[in-house]
Amino acid sequence: MIIVMEMGATESQVNHVVSLLREMGLREHIIVGTERTVVAALGDDRAKDKDKLENAPGVEKVMPVLAPYKMASREVKKERTVVALGGSLGGSVGGKKVALIAGPCSVEDRSQLLEIAHAVKEAGATGLRGGAFKPRTSPYAFQGLGEKGLQILAQAREKTGLAVVTEVMSIEQVPLVCQYADVLQVGARNMQNYNLLWAVGEQKKPVLLKRGLSATLEEFLLAAEYIMSRGNSNVMLCERGIRTFEKYCRNTLPLAIVPEVHRISHLPIVVDPSQGTGHAHLVPDMCKAAVACGADGLIVEVHNDPEHALTDGAQSVTPQSLKATMASLKRIAAAIDRDI
Amino acid sequence: MIIVMEMGATESQVNHVVSLLREMGLREHIIVGTERTVVAALGDDRAKDKDKLENAPGVEKVMPVLAPYKMASREVKKERTVVALGGSLGGSVGGKKVALIAGPCSVEDRSQLLEIAHAVKEAGATGLRGGAFKPRTSPYAFQGLGEKGLQILAQAREKTGLAVVTEVMSIEQVPLVCQYADVLQVGARNMQNYNLLWAVGEQKKPVLLKRGLSATLEEFLLAAEYIMSRGNSNVMLCERGIRTFEKYCRNTLPLAIVPEVHRISHLPIVVDPSQGTGHAHLVPDMCKAAVACGADGLIVEVHNDPEHALTDGAQSVTPQSLKATMASLKRIAAAIDRDI
Amino acid sequence: MIIVMEMGATESQVNHVVSLLREMGLREHIIVGTERTVVAALGDDRAKDKDKLENAPGVEKVMPVLAPYKMASREVKKERTVVALGGSLGGSVGGKKVALIAGPCSVEDRSQLLEIAHAVKEAGATGLRGGAFKPRTSPYAFQGLGEKGLQILAQAREKTGLAVVTEVMSIEQVPLVCQYADVLQVGARNMQNYNLLWAVGEQKKPVLLKRGLSATLEEFLLAAEYIMSRGNSNVMLCERGIRTFEKYCRNTLPLAIVPEVHRISHLPIVVDPSQGTGHAHLVPDMCKAAVACGADGLIVEVHNDPEHALTDGAQSVTPQSLKATMASLKRIAAAIDRDI
Amino acid sequence: MIIVMEMGATESQVNHVVSLLREMGLREHIIVGTERTVVAALGDDRAKDKDKLENAPGVEKVMPVLAPYKMASREVKKERTVVALGGSLGGSVGGKKVALIAGPCSVEDRSQLLEIAHAVKEAGATGLRGGAFKPRTSPYAFQGLGEKGLQILAQAREKTGLAVVTEVMSIEQVPLVCQYADVLQVGARNMQNYNLLWAVGEQKKPVLLKRGLSATLEEFLLAAEYIMSRGNSNVMLCERGIRTFEKYCRNTLPLAIVPEVHRISHLPIVVDPSQGTGHAHLVPDMCKAAVACGADGLIVEVHNDPEHALTDGAQSVTPQSLKATMASLKRIAAAIDRDI
Repeated sequence: MIIVMEMGATESQVNHVVSLLREMGLREHIIVGTERTVVAALGDDRAKDKDKLENAPGVEKVMPVLAPYKMASREVKKERTVVALGGSLGGSVGGKKVALIAGPCSVEDRSQLLEIAHAVKEAGATGLRGGAFKPRTSPYAFQGLGEKGLQILAQAREKTGLAVVTEVMSIEQVPLVCQYADVLQVGARNMQNYNLLWAVGEQKKPVLLKRGLSATLEEFLLAAEYIMSRGNSNVMLCERGIRTFEKYCRNTLPLAIVPEVHRISHLPIVVDPSQGTGHAHLVPDMCKAAVACGADGLIVEVHNDPEHALTDGAQSVTPQSLKATMASLKRIAAAIDRDI
Repeated sequence: MIIVMEMGATESQVNHVVSLLREMGLREHIIVGTERTVVAALGDDRAKDKDKLENAPGVEKVMPVLAPYKMASREVKKERTVVALGGSLGGSVGGKKVALIAGPCSVEDRSQLLEIAHAVKEAGATGLRGGAFKPRTSPYAFQGLGEKGLQILAQAREKTGLAVVTEVMSIEQVPLVCQYADVLQVGARNMQNYNLLWAVGEQKKPVLLKRGLSATLEEFLLAAEYIMSRGNSNVMLCERGIRTFEKYCRNTLPLAIVPEVHRISHLPIVVDPSQGTGHAHLVPDMCKAAVACGADGLIVEVHNDPEHALTDGAQSVTPQSLKATMASLKRIAAAIDRDI
Repeated sequence: MIIVMEMGATESQVNHVVSLLREMGLREHIIVGTERTVVAALGDDRAKDKDKLENAPGVEKVMPVLAPYKMASREVKKERTVVALGGSLGGSVGGKKVALIAGPCSVEDRSQLLEIAHAVKEAGATGLRGGAFKPRTSPYAFQGLGEKGLQILAQAREKTGLAVVTEVMSIEQVPLVCQYADVLQVGARNMQNYNLLWAVGEQKKPVLLKRGLSATLEEFLLAAEYIMSRGNSNVMLCERGIRTFEKYCRNTLPLAIVPEVHRISHLPIVVDPSQGTGHAHLVPDMCKAAVACGADGLIVEVHNDPEHALTDGAQSVTPQSLKATMASLKRIAAAIDRDI
Repeated sequence: MIIVMEMGATESQVNHVVSLLREMGLREHIIVGTERTVVAALGDDRAKDKDKLENAPGVEKVMPVLAPYKMASREVKKERTVVALGGSLGGSVGGKKVALIAGPCSVEDRSQLLEIAHAVKEAGATGLRGGAFKPRTSPYAFQGLGEKGLQILAQAREKTGLAVVTEVMSIEQVPLVCQYADVLQVGARNMQNYNLLWAVGEQKKPVLLKRGLSATLEEFLLAAEYIMSRGNSNVMLCERGIRTFEKYCRNTLPLAIVPEVHRISHLPIVVDPSQGTGHAHLVPDMCKAAVACGADGLIVEVHNDPEHALTDGAQSVTPQSLKATMASLKRIAAAIDRDI
């Protein structure tokens, strides 16, 4: 880290900062500039509360130099991580082929799910999404079918070979969801539910980690690091839109995160244009943009009857719309030497 | 809700919307305007997924009319809720007296906590804050002392009479934390951890619910509604800053939420100027502003040696600074006919 | 507009609202719902200060129904506007061919500009960007060459046939810039400089209007409406990134605006991935995403020696990088049945 | 500035950075850390485009050390600037007495303005606000009375002695507005209209500079620096709310900026709780908060008949409400050893 002293900071103030650094097990390097003195701290300070130094007399600000994550960083592992999804179709995320994970927001009943599952498989999906446990903003809204929903998902996998991707909301649900799912999803609202991150890090199934609504990229990678630090490195990052002042969309989808994740991390990144916009009419074009800029996968909400969906009808596309979009996506993927 | 049709929407499109509304158990009222037709839906639609209507042909947008929360609303309960904090000092939040809850970010050891506890009691606090389970952005950072920290907090209550306010991060921790704490805190990162909200709603201790970093006021009140809907109505809301583009502070503290909460809800609102700014030098003035605009309580991070604090040193004030601030706060509280 | 009354609003409060509506030249339609009364106002209220009604006793909130812009709306003009850029290459924005406008952030000298102009023409550009008047955050930074820069731009047009796109910062500059430029650019910081909007609306050259850093889409279209209302309908919208909490990029590029503009407006939309990200390494992939989701044009900062650029070196790509990107863009454009 | 090299950056990459620094007239200081090398640049780099260095091979990021403003900084001038408002009442901003500037959003007619002027003077104001040139989001909205409005403002000054504070929207208006006004206001939408900033910097009347909707504090102070660099140092900063995701208010009022401005600048800071919240019912409490945290002045929209105001009725308080609020404000000001 770099500690910038105030203009006119005294020698004893600089010395005090130095002694605080040494107490932290770091070494110092002092640079006397034209207008102010700067102290560079040498050593690994990732686990320290550096910010407290800004309270020391004469300190103006503290600037970190090292990224706080390690296992998620490309500096540590150069080759890209490829995560096998499970299911019998052999899909994976992070390789040359862009993965499609599609399905309803929530599992509503057996016939709905099977119908949608067959449709998304035909469209080219290798993963089936569908919520059995649903985090809902209102306590009065439909909360999902629970284990019954998981059983229906498993039946759909048997019929179609699609890998089951479904959310786990709390530690107690982990063993149950593991029985049925191929991929555990951690939702945006739980991205900093650290006990849950540890719990999914301590089991073997791959994890799809959604970015929190206002998480920085650094916080996002640190959440992945929580999972990886417990032994599970099969983590897929998922951008699902951030909260901004914009009003024409429920969330703002910041696609520049795709090339940035590829630059600084080895983990694959999946884009969710359904949550990422909140409106079905924006989903196809955002699918195209995501593939064009290098996303490793798409996760899309699909419903055979969006007007009667129990949840997220506004952002669910129909199987017909998905099929038409996939035709374009194949051509776009080819244009950047990938396929889908 | 109000459904606004597109310009030129056909009669059969309007009829289709009407039939969807009736399926939802609602009645319709059609208004043919100069430029477009609008359909008002009559009946309680709080538990419906209204937004899916925007996918129906000819619909431009759907606008909600009713607030989605009920128990947290002032429409349902006019008189302000006053929450007793516990401890032997008889503090409460929501009455004429503004409550002060103060203490270190985390419990570090017995002597540290006792020293701070005595100091904040002298300054006028009735509640002692201190984390035993700490949600940390990095998995490599100090995670709290756990049960040992809870025991130290309980000892400090014995010595000082201060009510113990401490965070619970997951369902499994609830019974343990209940053994030692007077008030369970749900942190900002867990504001939409719905299973945890239910769990704290099913026990009796009061709950201090922190606003999520990018939660709207409506989502904040719905989180309170989750707790209340399980039987616990002793909920204190806590504003701790939101995430914006601003850089001189770690979070932006939006104090207008204080009078707005008083207008639309009966729940008390506490302000956290430490998390709310991230810098000790901004804390005293934000304490003053919060009291002046009607906050029912303050929760302040205090450390006897901020330069050596294990967590959040940058935003912790010293006991001396707290004492000086309290002298001003007493005069400000008096200026608006309250006390502290 | 819809006026939602408070629960328990009295008849005389409703009558008062009705009389205020009638004073505004509107008619009313009262709907008595299960929980509250709602008053729909009939008539064109675009020019009224509707919000003042929220101050009337018994009113809870006021919700607009009509979009406040007209000339920029697709409801008024169904076919897409195609704007001819000028120059001798015959480029235009808004048709099947995606336009490329490229060049340095600022004009630095004649040889620099000519070299870059030739390079971007070879890469496929039909427009040359380059600032002669530069809005700079700091008064101490390079402010552009002024008229000298305009002359150099005009020379480059002569040599290459590229249309000149350059910024005008104030009303006094309009006649001068019109002498040299083919397209007047209004920068993000001036999107709500209404006098300037009027001035560019009163001349004949096409206008490239950049979205303000925190402008809503509605405000953006109203800014276009300012220009159009003075007689100039050759307006190109330009998305150049918005300000959010994100830190890995200087601005967040919200590409969903592209399909949304196409849905609600007939104006073409250009994307600026240089300003939109702030980092050269993110530009190529964001160019690809923009084309894939339907952008009508790209405006890209290109410099032959970014390390020595006087302005915006961090976000300028080299001619070589642009050329390589164009190869992909051609294939992506073909994939969505367009070309570039 | 500090240049952080990538892990594994080569010696020749470091040397290249050094040569770029020297070309910029700076000197280097190289620090070889445990994980990466860091280059500190010595010398005044305020006027350089530093960011371009991030494009050099092997560079990871560039971190500024020096604040880019000088004249607005407290490092350059320790004592607080006190700005005399003009008018015959002798008001000023920045001293012990908190200034009240109040009046209608726009000047509508003579009798309206005089009535309000007398009322706000009685309440304790020394400045009269009122727009003659109004920046409006929609071109169809009331744009102000122009010079006629200025004349009415001057008449009100004659009758009451209040200093006239009114907005100037473009360079051409500067001489005209100077004829009538005591203080020139630069609105939020024009905070980065640099030509206008220079124009108001070249005349003698004090300037009230409103913060842009999404301007950082650094950009805000640089806008002040634009004015000051042309010779006018009578600048008052004005916080009027920022744009965030919040919905219960039109803007989010971030009051921590008040103590932060006092820490880093010598310029006085005024708070506008009317624009800062957008709702009359939030204004009184935000006035109290602003005074409590040290604001040097308040600027408040007051209308004698808000339901019929031509502009901003929703956020205008009545003279009665202002009077009641002032009674509390006097007590709060006394509590922090100031008066109002």
